[in-house]
Amino acid sequence: MEEVRNQQVVLKDYVNGFPKESDMLINDSATINLKLQEGSNVVLVKNLYLSCDPYMRGRMSKSQGSYVDSYTPGSVGILGMPGMTAYAGFYEICAPKKGEYVFVSAASGAVGQFAKLSGCYVVGSAGTKEKVDLLKNKFGYDETFNYKEEQDLEATLKRDGIDIYFENVGGKMLEVVLANMRLNGRISACGMISQYNLEQGDGVRNLFHIITKSVRMQGFMVTDYFHMYPKYMEMIMPLIKQGEICYIEDVAEGLASAPAALVGLFSGRNVGKQVVVVTRE
Amino acid sequence: MEEVRNQQVVLKDYVNGFPKESDMLINDSATINLKLQEGSNVVLVKNLYLSCDPYMRGRMSKSQGSYVDSYTPGSVGILGMPGMTAYAGFYEICAPKKGEYVFVSAASGAVGQFAKLSGCYVVGSAGTKEKVDLLKNKFGYDETFNYKEEQDLEATLKRDGIDIYFENVGGKMLEVVLANMRLNGRISACGMISQYNLEQGDGVRNLFHIITKSVRMQGFMVTDYFHMYPKYMEMIMPLIKQGEICYIEDVAEGLASAPAALVGLFSGRNVGKQVVVVTRE
Repeated sequence: MEEVRNQQVVLKDYVNGFPKESDMLINDSATINLKLQEGSNVVLVKNLYLSCDPYMRGRMSKSQGSYVDSYTPGSVGILGMPGMTAYAGFYEICAPKKGEYVFVSAASGAVGQFAKLSGCYVVGSAGTKEKVDLLKNKFGYDETFNYKEEQDLEATLKRDGIDIYFENVGGKMLEVVLANMRLNGRISACGMISQYNLEQGDGVRNLFHIITKSVRMQGFMVTDYFHMYPKYMEMIMPLIKQGEICYIEDVAEGLASAPAALVGLFSGRNVGKQVVVVTRE
Repeated sequence: MEEVRNQQVVLKDYVNGFPKESDMLINDSATINLKLQEGSNVVLVKNLYLSCDPYMRGRMSKSQGSYVDSYTPGSVGILGMPGMTAYAGFYEICAPKKGEYVFVSAASGAVGQFAKLSGCYVVGSAGTKEKVDLLKNKFGYDETFNYKEEQDLEATLKRDGIDIYFENVGGKMLEVVLANMRLNGRISACGMISQYNLEQGDGVRNLFHIITKSVRMQGFMVTDYFHMYPKYMEMIMPLIKQGEICYIEDVAEGLASAPAALVGLFSGRNVGKQVVVVTRE
Protein backbone atom coordinates (compact mmCIF):
# COMPACT_ATOMS: atom_id res chain seq x y z
CA MET A 1 0.00 0.00 0.00
CA GLU A 2 2.92 2.37 0.44
CA GLU A 3 3.78 2.53 -3.25
CA VAL A 4 1.02 4.27 -5.24
CA ARG A 5 0.52 5.52 -8.77
CA ASN A 6 1.59 9.15 -9.30
CA GLN A 7 0.32 10.22 -12.70
CA GLN A 8 2.18 13.21 -14.14
CA VAL A 9 1.77 15.77 -16.91
CA VAL A 10 5.24 16.60 -18.17
CA LEU A 11 6.21 19.54 -20.39
CA LYS A 12 8.28 17.95 -23.14
CA ASP A 13 10.14 21.04 -24.24
CA TYR A 14 9.82 24.82 -24.21
CA VAL A 15 6.96 25.97 -26.39
CA ASN A 16 6.93 28.48 -29.26
CA GLY A 17 3.65 29.90 -30.51
CA PHE A 18 0.38 28.27 -29.49
CA PRO A 19 0.80 25.36 -27.08
CA LYS A 20 -0.39 21.99 -28.32
CA GLU A 21 -1.49 18.92 -26.41
CA SER A 22 1.49 17.15 -27.91
CA ASP A 23 3.81 19.55 -26.08
CA MET A 24 2.86 17.66 -22.95
CA LEU A 25 3.27 14.02 -22.05
CA ILE A 26 1.13 11.93 -19.72
CA ASN A 27 3.35 9.74 -17.61
CA ASP A 28 1.26 6.90 -16.16
CA SER A 29 4.07 4.76 -14.88
CA ALA A 30 5.46 6.95 -12.11
CA THR A 31 4.84 5.94 -8.52
CA ILE A 32 5.37 7.58 -5.18
CA ASN A 33 6.03 6.13 -1.74
CA LEU A 34 3.51 7.29 0.85
CA LYS A 35 5.77 6.43 3.75
CA LEU A 36 8.05 9.28 4.75
CA GLN A 37 11.44 8.86 6.29
CA GLU A 38 11.55 8.74 10.10
CA GLY A 39 12.08 12.29 11.43
CA SER A 40 11.36 13.92 8.09
CA ASN A 41 9.53 17.25 8.15
CA VAL A 42 8.28 16.90 4.59
CA VAL A 43 4.55 17.05 3.88
CA LEU A 44 3.06 14.94 1.14
CA VAL A 45 0.12 16.60 -0.61
CA LYS A 46 -2.65 14.90 -2.54
CA ASN A 47 -3.96 17.30 -5.17
CA LEU A 48 -7.68 17.11 -5.73
CA TYR A 49 -8.08 20.00 -8.14
CA LEU A 50 -5.88 21.91 -10.53
CA SER A 51 -6.41 25.28 -12.17
CA CYS A 52 -5.65 26.14 -15.80
CA ASP A 53 -4.89 29.81 -16.35
CA PRO A 54 -3.54 31.86 -19.26
CA TYR A 55 -0.47 33.03 -17.29
CA MET A 56 0.80 29.44 -17.39
CA ARG A 57 1.67 29.94 -21.03
CA GLY A 58 4.50 32.26 -20.03
CA ARG A 59 6.03 29.54 -17.89
CA MET A 60 6.22 27.22 -20.90
CA SER A 61 8.58 29.55 -22.78
CA LYS A 62 12.29 29.57 -22.29
CA SER A 63 13.34 33.18 -22.39
CA GLN A 64 10.40 34.91 -20.80
CA GLY A 65 11.09 36.08 -17.29
CA SER A 66 8.46 34.49 -15.12
CA TYR A 67 6.48 36.82 -12.93
CA VAL A 68 4.23 34.39 -11.16
CA ASP A 69 4.88 32.59 -7.96
CA SER A 70 4.52 28.87 -7.88
CA TYR A 71 1.00 27.58 -8.05
CA THR A 72 -0.76 27.38 -4.69
CA PRO A 73 -2.75 24.16 -4.47
CA GLY A 74 -6.35 24.66 -3.49
CA SER A 75 -6.64 28.26 -4.64
CA VAL A 76 -9.03 27.74 -7.50
CA GLY A 77 -12.06 29.65 -8.73
CA ILE A 78 -13.83 32.69 -7.38
CA LEU A 79 -12.56 32.18 -3.83
CA GLY A 80 -9.01 31.77 -5.04
CA MET A 81 -6.55 33.51 -7.31
CA PRO A 82 -8.96 34.45 -10.16
CA GLY A 83 -11.54 36.04 -7.86
CA MET A 84 -8.86 37.84 -5.87
CA THR A 85 -7.38 39.12 -9.16
CA ALA A 86 -10.72 40.58 -10.21
CA TYR A 87 -11.14 42.17 -6.78
CA ALA A 88 -7.68 43.76 -6.61
CA GLY A 89 -7.63 44.81 -10.25
CA PHE A 90 -11.07 46.35 -10.19
CA TYR A 91 -11.55 47.87 -6.74
CA GLU A 92 -8.00 48.66 -5.73
CA ILE A 93 -6.62 49.78 -9.08
CA CYS A 94 -9.66 51.29 -10.77
CA ALA A 95 -11.49 52.80 -7.78
CA PRO A 96 -14.84 52.67 -9.59
CA LYS A 97 -17.44 55.37 -9.15
CA LYS A 98 -21.18 55.03 -9.63
CA GLY A 99 -22.28 55.71 -13.19
CA GLU A 100 -18.91 55.13 -14.79
CA TYR A 101 -18.52 53.19 -18.02
CA VAL A 102 -16.63 49.92 -17.65
CA PHE A 103 -15.36 47.70 -20.43
CA VAL A 104 -14.05 44.19 -19.81
CA SER A 105 -12.31 42.29 -22.61
CA ALA A 106 -12.23 38.48 -22.50
CA ALA A 107 -14.87 39.33 -19.96
CA SER A 108 -14.87 37.38 -16.76
CA GLY A 109 -17.98 37.01 -14.69
CA ALA A 110 -16.44 38.42 -11.53
CA VAL A 111 -15.25 41.82 -12.81
CA GLY A 112 -18.54 42.56 -14.54
CA GLN A 113 -20.55 41.66 -11.45
CA PHE A 114 -18.31 43.80 -9.24
CA ALA A 115 -18.83 46.66 -11.67
CA LYS A 116 -22.61 46.25 -11.54
CA LEU A 117 -22.49 46.18 -7.73
CA SER A 118 -20.60 49.50 -7.94
CA GLY A 119 -23.37 51.06 -10.01
CA CYS A 120 -21.34 51.15 -13.23
CA TYR A 121 -22.50 50.60 -16.80
CA VAL A 122 -20.72 47.47 -18.01
CA VAL A 123 -19.85 46.33 -21.51
CA GLY A 124 -18.13 42.99 -22.04
CA SER A 125 -16.67 41.17 -25.01
CA ALA A 126 -16.11 37.48 -25.57
CA GLY A 127 -15.38 35.23 -28.52
CA THR A 128 -18.38 32.89 -28.74
CA LYS A 129 -22.15 33.32 -28.75
CA GLU A 130 -22.45 31.06 -25.72
CA LYS A 131 -20.13 33.24 -23.65
CA VAL A 132 -21.71 36.47 -24.84
CA ASP A 133 -25.11 35.12 -23.78
CA LEU A 134 -23.74 34.20 -20.38
CA LEU A 135 -22.33 37.66 -19.83
CA LYS A 136 -25.66 39.23 -20.62
CA ASN A 137 -28.06 36.76 -19.05
CA LYS A 138 -26.17 35.31 -16.12
CA PHE A 139 -23.66 37.97 -15.14
CA GLY A 140 -25.83 41.02 -15.82
CA TYR A 141 -23.60 42.92 -18.24
CA ASP A 142 -25.47 45.88 -19.74
CA GLU A 143 -24.08 45.31 -23.20
CA THR A 144 -22.04 42.55 -24.76
CA PHE A 145 -20.54 41.72 -28.11
CA ASN A 146 -18.66 38.94 -29.85
CA TYR A 147 -15.38 40.53 -30.86
CA LYS A 148 -14.91 37.96 -33.60
CA GLU A 149 -18.05 39.20 -35.33
CA GLU A 150 -17.54 42.94 -34.94
CA GLN A 151 -17.00 44.71 -38.24
CA ASP A 152 -16.00 47.98 -36.64
CA LEU A 153 -14.53 47.59 -33.19
CA GLU A 154 -13.74 51.30 -33.08
CA ALA A 155 -17.40 52.24 -33.46
CA THR A 156 -18.54 49.50 -31.08
CA LEU A 157 -16.37 50.85 -28.29
CA LYS A 158 -17.02 54.50 -29.00
CA ARG A 159 -20.54 54.81 -27.56
CA ASP A 160 -20.12 56.88 -24.42
CA GLY A 161 -16.43 56.17 -24.03
CA ILE A 162 -14.68 54.12 -21.37
CA ASP A 163 -13.83 55.24 -17.84
CA ILE A 164 -12.47 51.87 -16.70
CA TYR A 165 -10.93 49.16 -18.83
CA PHE A 166 -10.09 45.80 -17.34
CA GLU A 167 -7.41 44.60 -19.73
CA ASN A 168 -7.15 40.89 -20.42
CA VAL A 169 -6.40 40.90 -24.13
CA GLY A 170 -3.80 43.41 -25.35
CA GLY A 171 -2.87 44.08 -28.99
CA LYS A 172 -5.52 45.47 -31.32
CA MET A 173 -8.20 45.52 -28.62
CA LEU A 174 -6.05 47.72 -26.39
CA GLU A 175 -5.31 50.02 -29.33
CA VAL A 176 -9.00 50.59 -30.00
CA VAL A 177 -9.82 50.99 -26.32
CA LEU A 178 -7.12 53.66 -25.90
CA ALA A 179 -8.74 55.78 -28.59
CA ASN A 180 -12.03 55.62 -26.70
CA MET A 181 -10.88 56.28 -23.16
CA ARG A 182 -12.54 59.12 -21.27
CA LEU A 183 -10.80 61.84 -19.31
CA ASN A 184 -9.13 60.47 -16.17
CA GLY A 185 -9.74 56.90 -17.31
CA ARG A 186 -8.11 53.92 -15.64
CA ILE A 187 -6.77 50.76 -17.22
CA SER A 188 -6.18 47.79 -14.97
CA ALA A 189 -3.64 45.70 -16.88
CA CYS A 190 -4.25 42.14 -15.79
CA GLY A 191 -3.34 40.09 -18.85
CA MET A 192 -2.80 40.22 -22.60
CA ILE A 193 -3.88 36.79 -23.79
CA SER A 194 -3.74 37.75 -27.48
CA GLN A 195 0.02 38.24 -27.13
CA TYR A 196 1.20 35.18 -25.23
CA ASN A 197 1.66 32.92 -28.22
CA LEU A 198 3.27 35.45 -30.55
CA GLU A 199 6.97 35.35 -31.32
CA GLN A 200 6.95 39.14 -31.40
CA GLY A 201 4.11 41.06 -29.82
CA ASP A 202 1.83 43.42 -31.73
CA GLY A 203 2.70 47.10 -31.88
CA VAL A 204 -0.02 49.15 -30.21
CA ARG A 205 -0.95 52.58 -31.52
CA ASN A 206 -2.97 55.32 -29.81
CA LEU A 207 -0.82 55.50 -26.67
CA PHE A 208 -0.89 59.27 -27.08
CA HIS A 209 -4.44 59.16 -25.73
CA ILE A 210 -2.93 58.26 -22.36
CA ILE A 211 -1.63 61.82 -22.28
CA THR A 212 -4.56 63.67 -23.83
CA LYS A 213 -7.08 61.94 -21.56
CA SER A 214 -4.90 61.80 -18.42
CA VAL A 215 -5.27 58.03 -18.36
CA ARG A 216 -3.63 55.86 -15.72
CA MET A 217 -2.59 52.38 -16.87
CA GLN A 218 -1.51 50.15 -14.01
CA GLY A 219 -0.10 46.65 -14.28
CA PHE A 220 -0.38 44.41 -11.27
CA MET A 221 0.35 41.00 -9.87
CA VAL A 222 -2.30 39.48 -7.69
CA THR A 223 0.39 38.18 -5.35
CA ASP A 224 1.02 41.76 -4.23
CA TYR A 225 -2.56 41.92 -2.99
CA PHE A 226 -2.77 38.62 -1.12
CA HIS A 227 -2.62 40.49 2.18
CA MET A 228 -6.09 41.75 1.31
CA TYR A 229 -7.48 38.24 1.06
CA PRO A 230 -9.38 38.42 4.38
CA LYS A 231 -11.00 41.71 3.28
CA TYR A 232 -11.98 40.06 -0.01
CA MET A 233 -13.49 37.07 1.82
CA GLU A 234 -15.47 39.41 4.03
CA MET A 235 -16.95 41.05 0.96
CA ILE A 236 -17.47 38.06 -1.30
CA MET A 237 -18.80 35.37 1.05
CA PRO A 238 -22.12 37.07 1.88
CA LEU A 239 -22.59 37.98 -1.78
CA ILE A 240 -22.17 34.37 -2.84
CA LYS A 241 -24.44 33.11 -0.06
CA GLN A 242 -27.14 35.62 -0.97
CA GLY A 243 -26.84 34.71 -4.64
CA GLU A 244 -25.75 38.21 -5.64
CA ILE A 245 -22.57 36.93 -7.22
CA CYS A 246 -22.53 33.83 -9.34
CA TYR A 247 -19.73 32.02 -11.07
CA ILE A 248 -19.18 29.34 -13.64
CA GLU A 249 -16.56 26.66 -13.65
CA ASP A 250 -15.58 24.55 -16.60
CA VAL A 251 -14.61 21.22 -15.08
CA ALA A 252 -12.37 18.74 -16.87
CA GLU A 253 -12.29 15.25 -15.40
CA GLY A 254 -9.00 13.56 -14.64
CA LEU A 255 -5.40 14.70 -14.85
CA ALA A 256 -5.08 13.24 -18.35
CA SER A 257 -7.51 15.92 -19.56
CA ALA A 258 -5.30 18.74 -18.24
CA PRO A 259 -3.24 19.32 -21.41
CA ALA A 260 -6.37 19.72 -23.54
CA ALA A 261 -7.92 21.98 -20.91
CA LEU A 262 -4.84 24.21 -20.82
CA VAL A 263 -4.50 24.37 -24.60
CA GLY A 264 -8.21 25.13 -24.89
CA LEU A 265 -7.79 28.43 -23.01
CA PHE A 266 -6.02 29.93 -25.99
CA SER A 267 -8.75 29.07 -28.47
CA GLY A 268 -11.39 30.20 -25.96
CA ARG A 269 -12.86 26.71 -25.60
CA ASN A 270 -13.52 26.97 -21.88
CA VAL A 271 -16.68 28.56 -20.57
CA GLY A 272 -15.96 29.95 -17.13
CA LYS A 273 -13.01 29.22 -14.91
CA GLN A 274 -11.12 26.15 -16.16
CA VAL A 275 -10.65 23.57 -13.43
CA VAL A 276 -9.26 20.03 -13.63
CA VAL A 277 -10.51 17.46 -11.15
CA VAL A 278 -7.59 15.17 -10.42
CA THR A 279 -9.64 13.08 -8.05
CA ARG A 280 -12.70 13.78 -5.94
CA GLU A 281 -11.37 12.39 -2.68
CA MET B 1 -1.40 107.58 -31.75
CA GLU B 2 -4.43 105.37 -31.17
CA GLU B 3 -3.93 103.24 -34.26
CA VAL B 4 -0.81 101.05 -33.93
CA ARG B 5 0.81 98.21 -35.87
CA ASN B 6 -0.35 94.75 -34.77
CA GLN B 7 1.93 92.22 -36.43
CA GLN B 8 0.44 88.73 -36.65
CA VAL B 9 1.56 85.17 -37.32
CA VAL B 10 -1.29 83.44 -39.10
CA LEU B 11 -1.70 79.69 -39.63
CA LYS B 12 -2.47 79.39 -43.34
CA ASP B 13 -4.13 75.99 -43.21
CA TYR B 14 -4.22 72.84 -41.12
CA VAL B 15 -0.90 71.03 -41.19
CA ASN B 16 -0.10 67.42 -42.11
CA GLY B 17 3.27 65.94 -41.17
CA PHE B 18 6.10 68.20 -40.08
CA PRO B 19 5.15 71.88 -39.87
CA LYS B 20 7.06 74.22 -42.17
CA GLU B 21 7.67 77.93 -41.91
CA SER B 22 5.62 78.33 -45.06
CA ASP B 23 2.58 76.99 -43.19
CA MET B 24 2.54 80.33 -41.41
CA LEU B 25 2.18 83.82 -42.74
CA ILE B 26 3.54 87.04 -41.27
CA ASN B 27 0.94 89.74 -41.55
CA ASP B 28 2.61 93.13 -41.16
CA SER B 29 -0.24 95.30 -42.27
CA ALA B 30 -2.72 94.71 -39.45
CA THR B 31 -3.37 97.50 -36.98
CA ILE B 32 -5.20 97.80 -33.71
CA ASN B 33 -6.92 100.70 -32.04
CA LEU B 34 -5.60 101.35 -28.53
CA LYS B 35 -8.65 103.31 -27.49
CA LEU B 36 -11.39 101.15 -25.99
CA GLN B 37 -15.06 101.93 -26.18
CA GLU B 38 -16.50 103.98 -23.33
CA GLY B 39 -17.77 101.60 -20.60
CA SER B 40 -16.07 98.58 -22.10
CA ASN B 41 -14.67 96.01 -19.69
CA VAL B 42 -12.23 94.61 -22.23
CA VAL B 43 -8.51 94.54 -21.41
CA LEU B 44 -5.98 95.10 -24.15
CA VAL B 45 -2.80 93.08 -23.62
CA LYS B 46 0.63 93.85 -25.04
CA ASN B 47 2.54 90.60 -25.40
CA LEU B 48 6.24 90.89 -24.61
CA TYR B 49 7.18 87.23 -24.86
CA LEU B 50 5.81 84.11 -26.50
CA SER B 51 6.55 80.49 -25.81
CA CYS B 52 7.04 77.78 -28.44
CA ASP B 53 6.16 74.29 -27.22
CA PRO B 54 5.74 70.90 -28.88
CA TYR B 55 2.08 70.59 -27.84
CA MET B 56 1.29 73.45 -30.22
CA ARG B 57 1.73 71.04 -33.10
CA GLY B 58 -1.49 69.28 -32.10
CA ARG B 59 -3.41 72.53 -32.39
CA MET B 60 -2.28 72.92 -36.00
CA SER B 61 -4.04 69.70 -37.08
CA LYS B 62 -7.67 69.54 -38.00
CA SER B 63 -8.96 66.31 -36.54
CA GLN B 64 -6.99 66.03 -33.35
CA GLY B 65 -9.00 66.83 -30.26
CA SER B 66 -7.18 69.59 -28.49
CA TYR B 67 -6.33 68.95 -24.88
CA VAL B 68 -4.63 72.18 -23.97
CA ASP B 69 -6.17 75.31 -22.65
CA SER B 70 -5.50 78.53 -24.43
CA TYR B 71 -2.04 79.92 -24.03
CA THR B 72 -1.57 82.00 -20.88
CA PRO B 73 0.52 85.07 -21.70
CA GLY B 74 3.47 85.58 -19.41
CA SER B 75 3.81 81.96 -18.32
CA VAL B 76 7.08 81.16 -19.97
CA GLY B 77 10.13 79.23 -18.87
CA ILE B 78 10.99 77.53 -15.59
CA LEU B 79 8.60 79.67 -13.56
CA GLY B 80 5.77 79.02 -15.97
CA MET B 81 4.12 76.09 -17.68
CA PRO B 82 7.27 74.06 -18.54
CA GLY B 83 8.69 74.19 -15.01
CA MET B 84 5.31 73.42 -13.49
CA THR B 85 4.96 70.47 -15.90
CA ALA B 86 8.28 69.04 -14.76
CA TYR B 87 7.29 69.53 -11.13
CA ALA B 88 3.85 67.92 -11.40
CA GLY B 89 4.99 65.11 -13.69
CA PHE B 90 8.00 64.20 -11.61
CA TYR B 91 7.06 64.77 -7.98
CA GLU B 92 3.32 64.24 -8.05
CA ILE B 93 3.11 61.41 -10.54
CA CYS B 94 6.38 59.56 -9.99
CA ALA B 95 6.84 60.04 -6.23
CA PRO B 96 10.63 59.56 -6.52
CA LYS B 97 12.61 57.77 -3.84
CA LYS B 98 16.28 58.21 -3.08
CA GLY B 99 18.50 55.89 -5.08
CA GLU B 100 16.00 55.19 -7.84
CA TYR B 101 16.98 55.11 -11.50
CA VAL B 102 15.44 57.87 -13.57
CA PHE B 103 15.47 58.17 -17.34
CA VAL B 104 14.40 61.33 -19.15
CA SER B 105 13.97 61.30 -22.93
CA ALA B 106 14.29 64.57 -24.85
CA ALA B 107 15.74 65.46 -21.51
CA SER B 108 14.79 68.76 -20.04
CA GLY B 109 16.98 70.49 -17.54
CA ALA B 110 14.29 70.78 -14.89
CA VAL B 111 13.29 67.11 -14.53
CA GLY B 112 16.87 65.93 -14.32
CA GLN B 113 17.73 68.51 -11.68
CA PHE B 114 14.64 67.63 -9.65
CA ALA B 115 15.69 63.98 -9.85
CA LYS B 116 19.21 64.79 -8.62
CA LEU B 117 17.76 66.82 -5.75
CA SER B 118 15.72 63.71 -4.86
CA GLY B 119 18.87 61.60 -4.67
CA CYS B 120 18.13 59.63 -7.83
CA TYR B 121 20.52 58.35 -10.47
CA VAL B 122 19.63 60.18 -13.67
CA VAL B 123 20.17 59.23 -17.29
CA GLY B 124 19.13 61.59 -20.06
CA SER B 125 18.99 61.45 -23.83
CA ALA B 126 19.06 64.22 -26.39
CA GLY B 127 19.67 64.52 -30.10
CA THR B 128 22.77 66.71 -30.43
CA LYS B 129 26.24 66.73 -28.88
CA GLU B 130 25.65 70.25 -27.60
CA LYS B 131 22.54 69.23 -25.68
CA VAL B 132 24.10 66.06 -24.36
CA ASP B 133 27.02 68.09 -23.04
CA LEU B 134 24.64 70.52 -21.37
CA LEU B 135 22.76 67.70 -19.63
CA LYS B 136 25.99 66.33 -18.27
CA ASN B 137 27.91 69.50 -17.47
CA LYS B 138 25.27 72.05 -16.62
CA PHE B 139 22.32 70.04 -15.36
CA GLY B 140 24.25 67.32 -13.53
CA TYR B 141 22.85 64.21 -15.21
CA ASP B 142 24.82 61.12 -14.17
CA GLU B 143 24.81 59.65 -17.65
CA THR B 144 23.77 60.97 -21.01
CA PHE B 145 23.64 59.78 -24.58
CA ASN B 146 22.80 61.03 -28.04
CA TYR B 147 19.94 58.80 -29.18
CA LYS B 148 20.76 59.52 -32.80
CA GLU B 149 24.15 57.90 -32.39
CA GLU B 150 23.16 54.88 -30.32
CA GLN B 151 23.63 51.59 -32.16
CA ASP B 152 21.80 49.55 -29.55
CA LEU B 153 19.25 51.53 -27.59
CA GLU B 154 18.09 48.36 -25.87
CA ALA B 155 21.53 47.76 -24.36
CA THR B 156 22.03 51.44 -23.55
CA LEU B 157 18.89 51.51 -21.44
CA LYS B 158 19.37 48.11 -19.87
CA ARG B 159 22.07 48.97 -17.33
CA ASP B 160 20.36 48.82 -13.96
CA GLY B 161 16.86 49.24 -15.33
CA ILE B 162 14.50 52.17 -14.96
CA ASP B 163 12.35 52.99 -11.94
CA ILE B 164 11.04 56.27 -13.29
CA TYR B 165 10.64 57.29 -16.91
CA PHE B 166 9.69 60.83 -17.80
CA GLU B 167 8.17 60.32 -21.24
CA ASN B 168 8.56 63.08 -23.79
CA VAL B 169 9.19 61.06 -26.93
CA GLY B 170 6.94 58.01 -27.49
CA GLY B 171 7.29 55.45 -30.30
CA LYS B 172 10.44 53.35 -30.44
CA MET B 173 11.97 54.99 -27.36
CA LEU B 174 8.94 54.06 -25.25
CA GLU B 175 9.06 50.52 -26.60
CA VAL B 176 12.67 50.07 -25.50
CA VAL B 177 12.08 51.73 -22.15
CA LEU B 178 9.15 49.40 -21.39
CA ALA B 179 11.38 46.37 -21.79
CA ASN B 180 13.79 47.84 -19.25
CA MET B 181 11.39 49.01 -16.56
CA ARG B 182 11.96 47.76 -13.03
CA LEU B 183 9.37 46.30 -10.70
CA ASN B 184 6.84 48.93 -9.58
CA GLY B 185 8.19 51.41 -12.10
CA ARG B 186 6.40 54.64 -12.93
CA ILE B 187 6.05 56.35 -16.29
CA SER B 188 5.01 59.97 -16.30
CA ALA B 189 3.54 60.48 -19.77
CA CYS B 190 4.10 64.12 -20.57
CA GLY B 191 4.55 64.16 -24.34
CA MET B 192 5.36 62.05 -27.38
CA ILE B 193 7.15 64.43 -29.69
CA SER B 194 8.22 61.69 -32.12
CA GLN B 195 4.57 61.06 -32.93
CA TYR B 196 3.10 64.53 -33.47
CA ASN B 197 3.98 64.82 -37.13
CA LEU B 198 3.05 61.30 -38.19
CA GLU B 199 -0.09 60.59 -40.16
CA GLN B 200 -0.46 57.35 -38.24
CA GLY B 201 1.42 56.85 -34.98
CA ASP B 202 3.97 54.10 -34.42
CA GLY B 203 2.84 50.80 -32.94
CA VAL B 204 4.55 50.23 -29.60
CA ARG B 205 5.53 46.72 -28.50
CA ASN B 206 6.51 45.52 -25.03
CA LEU B 207 3.38 46.76 -23.27
CA PHE B 208 3.19 43.38 -21.59
CA HIS B 209 6.02 44.55 -19.33
CA ILE B 210 3.51 46.92 -17.73
CA ILE B 211 1.90 43.80 -16.29
CA THR B 212 4.97 41.74 -15.46
CA LYS B 213 6.69 44.64 -13.71
CA SER B 214 3.58 46.18 -12.14
CA VAL B 215 4.30 49.44 -13.92
CA ARG B 216 2.07 52.49 -13.60
CA MET B 217 1.86 54.72 -16.66
CA GLN B 218 0.08 57.99 -16.00
CA GLY B 219 -0.78 60.66 -18.52
CA PHE B 220 -1.35 64.16 -17.26
CA MET B 221 -2.17 67.71 -18.22
CA VAL B 222 -0.33 70.40 -16.37
CA THR B 223 -3.52 72.45 -16.19
CA ASP B 224 -4.87 69.93 -13.68
CA TYR B 225 -2.00 70.82 -11.35
CA PHE B 226 -2.10 74.60 -11.54
CA HIS B 227 -3.61 74.73 -8.06
CA MET B 228 -0.19 73.58 -6.84
CA TYR B 229 1.54 76.56 -8.38
CA PRO B 230 2.11 78.35 -5.04
CA LYS B 231 3.66 75.15 -3.62
CA TYR B 232 5.90 74.94 -6.68
CA MET B 233 6.98 78.58 -6.28
CA GLU B 234 7.80 77.95 -2.64
CA MET B 235 10.09 75.12 -3.64
CA ILE B 236 11.66 76.53 -6.78
CA MET B 237 12.34 80.16 -5.89
CA PRO B 238 14.95 79.51 -3.18
CA LEU B 239 16.60 76.88 -5.37
CA ILE B 240 16.96 79.35 -8.23
CA LYS B 241 18.20 82.11 -5.93
CA GLN B 242 20.78 79.79 -4.38
CA GLY B 243 21.89 78.62 -7.80
CA GLU B 244 20.88 75.01 -7.14
CA ILE B 245 18.61 74.93 -10.16
CA CYS B 246 19.64 76.45 -13.42
CA TYR B 247 17.84 76.79 -16.71
CA ILE B 248 18.53 77.66 -20.30
CA GLU B 249 16.36 79.66 -22.64
CA ASP B 250 16.70 79.79 -26.39
CA VAL B 251 15.60 83.30 -27.28
CA ALA B 252 14.42 84.23 -30.76
CA GLU B 253 14.15 87.94 -31.46
CA GLY B 254 10.98 89.41 -32.90
CA LEU B 255 7.61 87.95 -33.77
CA ALA B 256 8.70 87.33 -37.34
CA SER B 257 11.14 84.71 -36.03
CA ALA B 258 8.32 82.75 -34.32
CA PRO B 259 7.48 80.37 -37.21
CA ALA B 260 11.12 79.27 -37.54
CA ALA B 261 11.39 78.89 -33.77
CA LEU B 262 8.28 76.72 -33.63
CA VAL B 263 9.27 74.58 -36.60
CA GLY B 264 12.75 74.18 -35.11
CA LEU B 265 11.37 72.32 -32.08
CA PHE B 266 10.63 69.30 -34.23
CA SER B 267 14.12 69.04 -35.63
CA GLY B 268 15.57 69.67 -32.17
CA ARG B 269 17.16 72.97 -33.21
CA ASN B 270 16.42 74.76 -29.95
CA VAL B 271 18.73 74.44 -26.97
CA GLY B 272 16.69 74.97 -23.83
CA LYS B 273 13.25 76.43 -23.54
CA GLN B 274 12.24 78.18 -26.77
CA VAL B 275 11.09 81.74 -26.17
CA VAL B 276 10.23 84.47 -28.66
CA VAL B 277 10.76 88.09 -27.65
CA VAL B 278 8.01 90.09 -29.29
CA THR B 279 9.28 93.33 -27.81
CA ARG B 280 11.27 94.15 -24.71
CA GLU B 281 9.01 96.85 -23.39
